[in-house]
Amino acid sequence: SSHPQSHTSSLVDATGCRFLRALLPSDLAGRSKGGQAQNGSVDVLDLLQGWGSGVGTYDDFNTIDWVREKSKDRDRHREVSHFCLPYDAFSGWLLMLLIGLMSGALAGGIDIAAHWLTDLKEGVCLNGFWFNHEHCCWNSKETTFQERHRCPQWKSWAELTVGVTEGASAYVVNYLMYVIWALLFSFLAVFLVRAFAPYACGSGIPEIKTILSGFIIRGYLGKWTLVIKTITLVLAVASGLSLGKEGPLVHVACCCGNIFCHLFTKYRKNEAKRREVLSAASAVGVSVAFGAPIGGVLFSLEEVSYYFPLKTLWRSFFAALVAAFTLRSINPFGNSRLVLFYVEFHTPWHLLELFPFVLLGIFGGLWGALFIRANIAWCRRRKATRLGRYPVLEVAVVSLATAVLAFPNDYTRMSGSELISELFNDCSLLDSSKLCDYGPLAKGGEPAGNLSEGTVGQAERPAGPGVYTAVWQLAMALLFKMAITVVTFGMKVPSGLFIPSMAVGAVAGRLLGIGMEQLAYYHHDWDMFHGWCSPGAHCITPGLYAMLGAAACLGGVTRMTVSLVVIMFELTGGLEYIVPLMAAVMTSKWVADALGREGIYEAHIRLNGYPFLEPKEEFVHKTLATDVMRPRRSDPPLSVVTQDGMTVEELEGLISDTSYSGFPVVVSPESHRLVGFVLRRDLVISIDNARRCQEGIVGVSRVIFTEHTPVEAQGAPPPLNLRAILDLSPLAITDHTPMEITVDIFRKLGLRQCLVTQNGRLLGIITKKDILKHMAQMANRDPDSILFN
Amino acid sequence: SSHPQSHTSSLVDATGCRFLRALLPSDLAGRSKGGQAQNGSVDVLDLLQGWGSGVGTYDDFNTIDWVREKSKDRDRHREVSHFCLPYDAFSGWLLMLLIGLMSGALAGGIDIAAHWLTDLKEGVCLNGFWFNHEHCCWNSKETTFQERHRCPQWKSWAELTVGVTEGASAYVVNYLMYVIWALLFSFLAVFLVRAFAPYACGSGIPEIKTILSGFIIRGYLGKWTLVIKTITLVLAVASGLSLGKEGPLVHVACCCGNIFCHLFTKYRKNEAKRREVLSAASAVGVSVAFGAPIGGVLFSLEEVSYYFPLKTLWRSFFAALVAAFTLRSINPFGNSRLVLFYVEFHTPWHLLELFPFVLLGIFGGLWGALFIRANIAWCRRRKATRLGRYPVLEVAVVSLATAVLAFPNDYTRMSGSELISELFNDCSLLDSSKLCDYGPLAKGGEPAGNLSEGTVGQAERPAGPGVYTAVWQLAMALLFKMAITVVTFGMKVPSGLFIPSMAVGAVAGRLLGIGMEQLAYYHHDWDMFHGWCSPGAHCITPGLYAMLGAAACLGGVTRMTVSLVVIMFELTGGLEYIVPLMAAVMTSKWVADALGREGIYEAHIRLNGYPFLEPKEEFVHKTLATDVMRPRRSDPPLSVVTQDGMTVEELEGLISDTSYSGFPVVVSPESHRLVGFVLRRDLVISIDNARRCQEGIVGVSRVIFTEHTPVEAQGAPPPLNLRAILDLSPLAITDHTPMEITVDIFRKLGLRQCLVTQNGRLLGIITKKDILKHMAQMANRDPDSILFN
Repeated sequence: SSHPQSHTSSLVDATGCRFLRALLPSDLAGRSKGGQAQNGSVDVLDLLQGWGSGVGTYDDFNTIDWVREKSKDRDRHREVSHFCLPYDAFSGWLLMLLIGLMSGALAGGIDIAAHWLTDLKEGVCLNGFWFNHEHCCWNSKETTFQERHRCPQWKSWAELTVGVTEGASAYVVNYLMYVIWALLFSFLAVFLVRAFAPYACGSGIPEIKTILSGFIIRGYLGKWTLVIKTITLVLAVASGLSLGKEGPLVHVACCCGNIFCHLFTKYRKNEAKRREVLSAASAVGVSVAFGAPIGGVLFSLEEVSYYFPLKTLWRSFFAALVAAFTLRSINPFGNSRLVLFYVEFHTPWHLLELFPFVLLGIFGGLWGALFIRANIAWCRRRKATRLGRYPVLEVAVVSLATAVLAFPNDYTRMSGSELISELFNDCSLLDSSKLCDYGPLAKGGEPAGNLSEGTVGQAERPAGPGVYTAVWQLAMALLFKMAITVVTFGMKVPSGLFIPSMAVGAVAGRLLGIGMEQLAYYHHDWDMFHGWCSPGAHCITPGLYAMLGAAACLGGVTRMTVSLVVIMFELTGGLEYIVPLMAAVMTSKWVADALGREGIYEAHIRLNGYPFLEPKEEFVHKTLATDVMRPRRSDPPLSVVTQDGMTVEELEGLISDTSYSGFPVVVSPESHRLVGFVLRRDLVISIDNARRCQEGIVGVSRVIFTEHTPVEAQGAPPPLNLRAILDLSPLAITDHTPMEITVDIFRKLGLRQCLVTQNGRLLGIITKKDILKHMAQMANRDPDSILFN
Repeated sequence: SSHPQSHTSSLVDATGCRFLRALLPSDLAGRSKGGQAQNGSVDVLDLLQGWGSGVGTYDDFNTIDWVREKSKDRDRHREVSHFCLPYDAFSGWLLMLLIGLMSGALAGGIDIAAHWLTDLKEGVCLNGFWFNHEHCCWNSKETTFQERHRCPQWKSWAELTVGVTEGASAYVVNYLMYVIWALLFSFLAVFLVRAFAPYACGSGIPEIKTILSGFIIRGYLGKWTLVIKTITLVLAVASGLSLGKEGPLVHVACCCGNIFCHLFTKYRKNEAKRREVLSAASAVGVSVAFGAPIGGVLFSLEEVSYYFPLKTLWRSFFAALVAAFTLRSINPFGNSRLVLFYVEFHTPWHLLELFPFVLLGIFGGLWGALFIRANIAWCRRRKATRLGRYPVLEVAVVSLATAVLAFPNDYTRMSGSELISELFNDCSLLDSSKLCDYGPLAKGGEPAGNLSEGTVGQAERPAGPGVYTAVWQLAMALLFKMAITVVTFGMKVPSGLFIPSMAVGAVAGRLLGIGMEQLAYYHHDWDMFHGWCSPGAHCITPGLYAMLGAAACLGGVTRMTVSLVVIMFELTGGLEYIVPLMAAVMTSKWVADALGREGIYEAHIRLNGYPFLEPKEEFVHKTLATDVMRPRRSDPPLSVVTQDGMTVEELEGLISDTSYSGFPVVVSPESHRLVGFVLRRDLVISIDNARRCQEGIVGVSRVIFTEHTPVEAQGAPPPLNLRAILDLSPLAITDHTPMEITVDIFRKLGLRQCLVTQNGRLLGIITKKDILKHMAQMANRDPDSILFN
């Protein structure tokens, strides 16, 4: 936080050095008041302000210093002239608008393309191969409403090749084509990812969480990742693999955010400000994924973001709305609905139904915890064994297995979101699906047909043969989805978890719902139905059960709470269903938490060894700072820099002998009184620059960090003053500080390191990595699993 | 953070001292590892663990230390046996349930009672005086739907006394009774507040914000405040004063929260945990005020809370839902709607309408900024002049003026929420109000009557005489409301601002809406209406304008953003209107912010001199910690305690000579190496206890803070070891730390004080009050306006 940035223009010569200018007092360390240039000393600050000097930037796979970044931004803000302030404030809103428009457009494009490619697996449109099934049959008036999916323009592959629509040969041809297309799409996806943008795989949310907490992964949110992820997401979804597009859409939106940040200096140059934008972008991602802007903002707040000031809340909301309305004007679902799964239930729920709802919550929690364990074990195996070396083959095999097993079952053949839509749907008048194939009322007089409005969707009826078939198929689909999702998530293709998790829950919920409904029909004289479910009344809504199951399973896997309830609320729009939703989601979270504290994203963060300091997890142990700091008792003493006693050579020796990313500066080695902290990277760059460009700097030149440069003895080379790169306000805690407070300080202030003193003497240093290792140790995990700084 | 709490039982003798027990090593300072009792020294810790010793508690009007409180809670949590952990976690949910139920019930009661008393101003029910107008006429079948408000059981005061319902004498009697009742109610309200609970006045939100930020105001959330505020809120609302019940409902909910906290040790004993509960309670307050649980949670997050962890978010949401559903089951509005103002619009808005919407935003912003200035100026005058000495008289006068001026105008005679409901309402088929008195269509054939469904509410029509009257009355009402609200808010009765602000905005919005509608009717050939507003079409919804105006004015006054939009969204339930809402609210906030940074609550906090460190305001100045810390250059040196060099007498002298709330402990006065920090209150209590109860402690006894007690010379009294009350982990920053970072540290960690070092030597101290004074100074305000610690 002590790097005044001068915006004067600078001339850089061929060797990369700036011509030395006469030093003006105002050029000198803005923070160290009263500091003045003295004869015989050259301030290196002057040399560092040009382009590319690199002071104040970060290496790849390193953690940023939030305090310094925020300080830098305030410095910048102070320098903005009063005239430009409105533009400065406005630029943030403009950025949000751009992100919203771009993400909304991309999401719309992805939806349309995925829809088209998915349909291509089944057949082709004769009017033009670029039409999907729905668009192809849009204008076909020859068919009745019932048969609206069969129009002459749309030809299945069997029809095109062997000329028949029914029978064994047609089935085999269609099966074959389905498998071939699926293989082709998934192969293309994994090939593109491998060849052009390795970061485009997976859901991206674990990495985005880590980046938002202050980690640097160069290229993770870059142009190439955006392009490749967008394309391969379409392919992966179309291939029929058990994955969703929600997580990757968050990644796509964050890429947009990061790319647009380059348009504005304010955001380009400041890692902290950029993370505010990315927090908003992740809200945009969920907003377009579900059409739920408020839920998206809460998702960003609850699940993804690390530093989320209120200003960002408001801007995120704006961006999420813009994106949602952009998506709606593109209208990819063709129903001018904003939301992905529009449901409207007409039957109120009864208090007694809370019991099955809680059961769904328990199922969701169990499945969530189990899924996380199985998936992490599988991913670990992939990392440890030869499996990890053949990602393309892996994708091909899983994709083949998925396609071969999915085709025979109607409910696995359709895409995940279609399945969920169908399961959420309350059977109404016009439904011709198997799930709504109920028999006539056994008693009560009215002869109920499929199209008689009076009864369909109004009264409980016995299940017809279609429903029984559907139940069997759904049961098979449940087992299949549960197994295949475990191996799918984590492959080298873009893959989200929301849709597969919700699909599992929706199937389970619908099955329970149908069970309850039939129970109510056949046993409405039971005590439990007494008083609220009389014969002829419609009292159980299987679609609601499906929705609650979906929410419970998603909650179990991701451990979302408020945001999940709000997303679901935005889908249904009815406050009445919030109570069942809360019951299911809460139970699911409790059950899942009891079996394992981590959600899937945290588990993947830990698997990958990212330095992520979980803001939700409380540190419960009784250790003190002195137990965690380095050097340990057996280690060599702390490497420190003295403020005026070391030469350039000595410093270079210290740098090459150690690998620490910074050194404390003390008054003298004896007193160990702390003066400040200097970063290794800044030190290396400064000395390097001084050696190259500054006359008289040799190995024996003294390096000083004091305000006033002492006068050197006759004949000695001029000293090098590096006070400008010295952080004069390092945070120091005492050795008796409990680790719980230390962890809190690190989390809340976003520190990278913190010094430890004892009775005013510098004793050691604690870095974020030390803390993470200590936490891993305390939880009986391998402390070496944290890989990066 | 160094006060281990032992849960062993303790015997306290008559003088309040605990009998000395043999010291066990495990009793000794749990944090100072290796500390052992040595002969010749008595540890005072042992004396402090009984009831009422007061160590670790706070004085009234003091700021809590969040770090210490959170540490205490973690200590407590560690001591909870594994068996009790589920109960420990469950107690939080139970507490939320209780708060939700109680607040919902109270809100329902307040609604019903206020409704009844409001109607009592107009007349009385013959079936029983406890029926309000609506209930009285519930079963009256004699009247037509049009005349449903005139039923024989309900008698106006004129009818009862002089026996006529129409004419001058009836008017005068009704007028008189209205004024008398209003005066009576308001007098009762202010009398009860003055006599029993002075804290029950005002909206309570400024104080709750301050309390949540860590301030102690004893009794502010107590039983008496709850009872009196509930009763007087009913009276104040019924008296017809220009005030609302939303802010006070937040206060009532927080009182419930605070009172229920006493049931659970976890929350009773910990100020930080209790504040988490209060944050949730404030969400409950808004949830019951508007029937908007999600909006309530966001309100708490955005506007009220200071420390709002995610766990609290989830629990707040639960509590808000419970409260909303409790309220709905009480059904005070008699329509089984959850929300206060239910609106449903059927006409989409057009992009061009954004222009008037933004105009409403500008109006809202101007009004908000102006209102804040006028109200603060008035409150300052009340404080400074004799006016403040006669609060009862003030209420009586304002109430008289309100009643006298309000009665002649229909729109001011009705209560604020009725007015808003009426203005939000879209004119439909059955409306008989003046606002919906439109004339027949000038062209288009259809002879439109009041009850012809085809046209009413469907086509733009010319305004009838009723509408013109209404417009005039509304314009008068606008001026009246704007003026009277300024003097009403801040009087010694419970008074919320939401309803009056919304009323002003709703009136302005409706007027603009009617204007636009008539413009569209008479000039639909204008370019601006071309293409979307053809003759015979219904294109302008004046109710929507009223809603946007209300949102804009409320936004201008309170500077709420997201929560306001979400509350309004929950009222309408349509995502379509979020964009206009955002446009209006955003404009309003920008305009208001340009005229004055503070919202009404912050302005009142500053007016009252509470030590509130605004989390939203950025500190933009370039000062350093050394500029803010005490002692200043001209002051006497910092008062410090040495770790082993002072006697009891010297310490007592130091305590009586100074008024600081704590002292740094150093190794020696020469080295100024920091060891720890000791609070004045703890020191006073400990020395007092030791003097009373511990043998051999005299004035010349040495007080030591070291781990190992030195052996005293022969004949010297035994030393008193006070290490147990020493905070071994005080946070220290360097003198070069920029104040922006210091302010950030104070905000985020919730510090009360922070020590300042220079090159490892203790130099000074910064307290929260110093920071607030410095910020006031930097903003050119009176730094002495901060009154409390």
